[in-house]
Amino acid sequence: MDKISIAGLFLGLAAIVFGQVLEGGHLASLVQPTAFLIVVGGTLGAVMLQSPLTVFREGMAMVKWVFVPPVVDPDRQIAEISRWSHIARKEGLLSLETHIGGVKDPFTVKGLQLLVDGSEPERLREVLEVEITAVESNLRAAAKVWEAAGGYAPTIGILGAVMGLIHVMENLSDPSKLGSGIAVAFVATIYGVGAANLIFLPVAKKLMANIARVITLREMLVDGLVGIANGDNPRILESRLQGYFA
Amino acid sequence: MDKISIAGLFLGLAAIVFGQVLEGGHLASLVQPTAFLIVVGGTLGAVMLQSPLTVFREGMAMVKWVFVPPVVDPDRQIAEISRWSHIARKEGLLSLETHIGGVKDPFTVKGLQLLVDGSEPERLREVLEVEITAVESNLRAAAKVWEAAGGYAPTIGILGAVMGLIHVMENLSDPSKLGSGIAVAFVATIYGVGAANLIFLPVAKKLMANIARVITLREMLVDGLVGIANGDNPRILESRLQGYFA
Amino acid sequence: MDKISIAGLFLGLAAIVFGQVLEGGHLASLVQPTAFLIVVGGTLGAVMLQSPLTVFREGMAMVKWVFVPPVVDPDRQIAEISRWSHIARKEGLLSLETHIGGVKDPFTVKGLQLLVDGSEPERLREVLEVEITAVESNLRAAAKVWEAAGGYAPTIGILGAVMGLIHVMENLSDPSKLGSGIAVAFVATIYGVGAANLIFLPVAKKLMANIARVITLREMLVDGLVGIANGDNPRILESRLQGYFA
Amino acid sequence: MDKISIAGLFLGLAAIVFGQVLEGGHLASLVQPTAFLIVVGGTLGAVMLQSPLTVFREGMAMVKWVFVPPVVDPDRQIAEISRWSHIARKEGLLSLETHIGGVKDPFTVKGLQLLVDGSEPERLREVLEVEITAVESNLRAAAKVWEAAGGYAPTIGILGAVMGLIHVMENLSDPSKLGSGIAVAFVATIYGVGAANLIFLPVAKKLMANIARVITLREMLVDGLVGIANGDNPRILESRLQGYFA
Amino acid sequence: MDKISIAGLFLGLAAIVFGQVLEGGHLASLVQPTAFLIVVGGTLGAVMLQSPLTVFREGMAMVKWVFVPPVVDPDRQIAEISRWSHIARKEGLLSLETHIGGVKDPFTVKGLQLLVDGSEPERLREVLEVEITAVESNLRAAAKVWEAAGGYAPTIGILGAVMGLIHVMENLSDPSKLGSGIAVAFVATIYGVGAANLIFLPVAKKLMANIARVITLREMLVDGLVGIANGDNPRILESRLQGYFA
Repeated sequence: MDKISIAGLFLGLAAIVFGQVLEGGHLASLVQPTAFLIVVGGTLGAVMLQSPLTVFREGMAMVKWVFVPPVVDPDRQIAEISRWSHIARKEGLLSLETHIGGVKDPFTVKGLQLLVDGSEPERLREVLEVEITAVESNLRAAAKVWEAAGGYAPTIGILGAVMGLIHVMENLSDPSKLGSGIAVAFVATIYGVGAANLIFLPVAKKLMANIARVITLREMLVDGLVGIANGDNPRILESRLQGYFA
Repeated sequence: MDKISIAGLFLGLAAIVFGQVLEGGHLASLVQPTAFLIVVGGTLGAVMLQSPLTVFREGMAMVKWVFVPPVVDPDRQIAEISRWSHIARKEGLLSLETHIGGVKDPFTVKGLQLLVDGSEPERLREVLEVEITAVESNLRAAAKVWEAAGGYAPTIGILGAVMGLIHVMENLSDPSKLGSGIAVAFVATIYGVGAANLIFLPVAKKLMANIARVITLREMLVDGLVGIANGDNPRILESRLQGYFA
Repeated sequence: MDKISIAGLFLGLAAIVFGQVLEGGHLASLVQPTAFLIVVGGTLGAVMLQSPLTVFREGMAMVKWVFVPPVVDPDRQIAEISRWSHIARKEGLLSLETHIGGVKDPFTVKGLQLLVDGSEPERLREVLEVEITAVESNLRAAAKVWEAAGGYAPTIGILGAVMGLIHVMENLSDPSKLGSGIAVAFVATIYGVGAANLIFLPVAKKLMANIARVITLREMLVDGLVGIANGDNPRILESRLQGYFA
Repeated sequence: MDKISIAGLFLGLAAIVFGQVLEGGHLASLVQPTAFLIVVGGTLGAVMLQSPLTVFREGMAMVKWVFVPPVVDPDRQIAEISRWSHIARKEGLLSLETHIGGVKDPFTVKGLQLLVDGSEPERLREVLEVEITAVESNLRAAAKVWEAAGGYAPTIGILGAVMGLIHVMENLSDPSKLGSGIAVAFVATIYGVGAANLIFLPVAKKLMANIARVITLREMLVDGLVGIANGDNPRILESRLQGYFA
Repeated sequence: MDKISIAGLFLGLAAIVFGQVLEGGHLASLVQPTAFLIVVGGTLGAVMLQSPLTVFREGMAMVKWVFVPPVVDPDRQIAEISRWSHIARKEGLLSLETHIGGVKDPFTVKGLQLLVDGSEPERLREVLEVEITAVESNLRAAAKVWEAAGGYAPTIGILGAVMGLIHVMENLSDPSKLGSGIAVAFVATIYGVGAANLIFLPVAKKLMANIARVITLREMLVDGLVGIANGDNPRILESRLQGYFA
């Protein structure tokens, strides 16, 4: 549970709400369904138009990582690689086959299987790097859904503001409607700029940070498996792997 | 048929239209032929000035990919490469020649021909990579026509807005014309910002995502052909190729 | 003669002019010598301050490429390289010396001379790549003069606008001068934003596209000469070179 | 003690304060707790939402580097490496073991230990480079907390400005509240733009400059250790290392 | 003496001054000490906060390069390298030692010394490349002081503008002060935008262009020394070096 992110989300929104109250304004004036429709509909439309379906879905699903980051436990993985390394040294690479069964992560299984099959170290690295590159590119594409939303929201907010101002202009002769038109205009700006800066862009950045950790863990795993294939000294291998999360 | 993109396009435009209606505005006030002329003419002019003719045409034609993405079926291609790999192992590389006839894609034909000609694996890769690089660069140039339009449209919209405001200033003494001048000004902004954010930029991003898939498929193909030339074990080759779309 | 660029230039400017007419405005109000002086003088001054003289001159001269692109004929060059390749195979590299006389481009002459001198293929590539890198960097620097102008013009336009507004403020008590001050202000914005988006930036992009073709042609030539030095099979060499403009 | 940074911080803030006084304005009008709450709360919220906890903490702690930069003394390190190099040449690599005890920096200890263990030079470099890459990426992530704050603050300032303007609009009928609303609006802009440009962004840049020095020092160390492992001539090694901070 | 830069600087400033005069405005209204204090003080403060002292000083000193560019004479250097190359071929590398005395540039001395010491060509290149990288990074950091100033100035100008507008708001009841407040506001914008676009950013770009030439000259030198170490044919070496400034 990532408490700093939850705290950050609430702090950002609370600053807006309390700011409004402290100024003596009504909270109700920050609630404008029309402005909400324009900003959310427009931003969502733009994001959906630009995203392949699988990327959009993965992007939506990935938002859970903001509050519950994916498990990245380098120490545990180093211990495991170290254990495999000792086994391989004592009993040979083939003996690792009996340990594959206990592994859940399919990527690790694939790597161990290649190791057991006796792939050359460089081949092993190439095969696994191809997959890491593809996985990283997919994960980043999903996180960029939020980055894109953070890019579109403020301009759609301005679109809503200009629409509100047109409404104002058309009713210049009826000053009673003037206030509400300007309110929609300004609230659309607040929705667009606020959603982008207090939610979408920080979420995208947080997801990118998580992705970097997930990918570094995989790169450490590949380096470890290649080290085992090379018959590296387990102690040096461990020292090397510890560098990845130094 | 890419339903999410069609839905996104309609959702974005609908948000604007319904927003206008909900605010009690007339839809007609969003229709300003002069603003349309300035924004569309100016943006199109800028894009045509910057684009070589072939790039411009390819960019226009490529818009179909937004709704009907190019077929990228990695499983089918892996199966095919795997089949060729088995044939080459059993009957030799030369025996692949009889299979070239059934292939339609000229790039695949070129690769198979080089394979049959007995090119060295590294040479094979180099020759095909040169072409992939050129193809990718052409495709991206075509998609960037939309990115450029997304860059020009908002500033041309502001140009139209300023022209409308000049008109307003010249008629300050005639308040009856004031409203219409400001309307053109604001609607030009809406056209420019809206076209860029609800259409041009998302289209460019969608095209880029499609291009990435097309190019990755070709890179997988090259990797497969090089693997066949190297006499790689078909099972490991397959496992390696599956990494490209992991 | 690049018709699409000429059409684009006219279309962009025509959209502004007709937009002004359709709105019922006077074309004359778009003509403001003071605004023109500020925008053109300021932009030109900034560009001259930032550019070494040779780069500035080359940038100005290069604008002809927008309408008459440099000749890039890959098919002809491939045919020529192919011819050299056959000659070299039949009669030896030295026999190419007699063909150097008929070549006009000094870069091609240099490459052929190195070939005839019996340079090692890798050396040949290195020597020519150094020059390609320098040429590309010079050409891009020249094209960036236009990119820079496109970056400065809108902000100088805003500068002119603010100067106009100061003038307005100083004459608030004399409303008759008010209109003209605001007009200069707005027209300066139009000049700055319009020049950047309808001329400078598209010109820079067009030049960059032409430079890419020129450089790719040279890279193809180098690849061909290296292939001849390596004694590559002419048919495979041709197939390889065709990839550059695929 | 980095006097230029302290001077810069005070100069920037003093320019604002004296500017306000010289214009004949009250300093008190620059103090608006509500605007402060919105800008600081919103910016802090966005930064916390986007940062993993460890990165956020390290970013906060790193601010001390602005005024007391980390010690980077290339001459001392070159002298030390040179000393080790002479020892290794005279008495063998193993004899360095007795010198590890006097070294405090764990990274240097790790490098020396690998040297003493007789790791191959290329291996030594790889192991240490992995750690440098990880350390650099962590340090930069921490510094980017300030860069991010510099990105969010101005837009949150505009958010606060728009909220102030809404407040103004709601009280158009009560002109006595008009001034205070606009003041909050404008002061929020000043806080956001000022904090970003006079504090956050320069701090981020200063931290990045310090990080570059720290990392270059480590790269020099690695190069030195690899040189010792290669048995390089101490004089040439020294000349080479001096290039890192030329 | 770089006349185009001097002309550019005067042209840019003259365009502003004449523009003001042509509009019938008073030059005096462009002179606002308070606005000057805010923009210059704020920008200088931000730049000093972000820069290590040595970088700041070097950036200030480097401004002379805008008008008197550093001497970069490739022809003379090629002739010199060619001479060394002939000497080395005839009399051996050691004979170059007597020529080191006449060389002033310490970098060239270092390179020649390494050559005379009989360093391996690849080692020679590595040692010198490390230094070139460091020198380039220092020079670019110094030039970026101006780039940074060009980034901060416009936003500090806006800060000054908003402060002026606050002043106006506080004196709405006293219309006589209104004009002066708005003037300060607008002039601060002019100072910020003008300084950035007519001075700081072009200066930064000009410095970068000079740095590129200085560094390319050094890279040519390194390539020449490596060529001598390799015993390259002087004529081919010369042809190769000429490519660097083609």
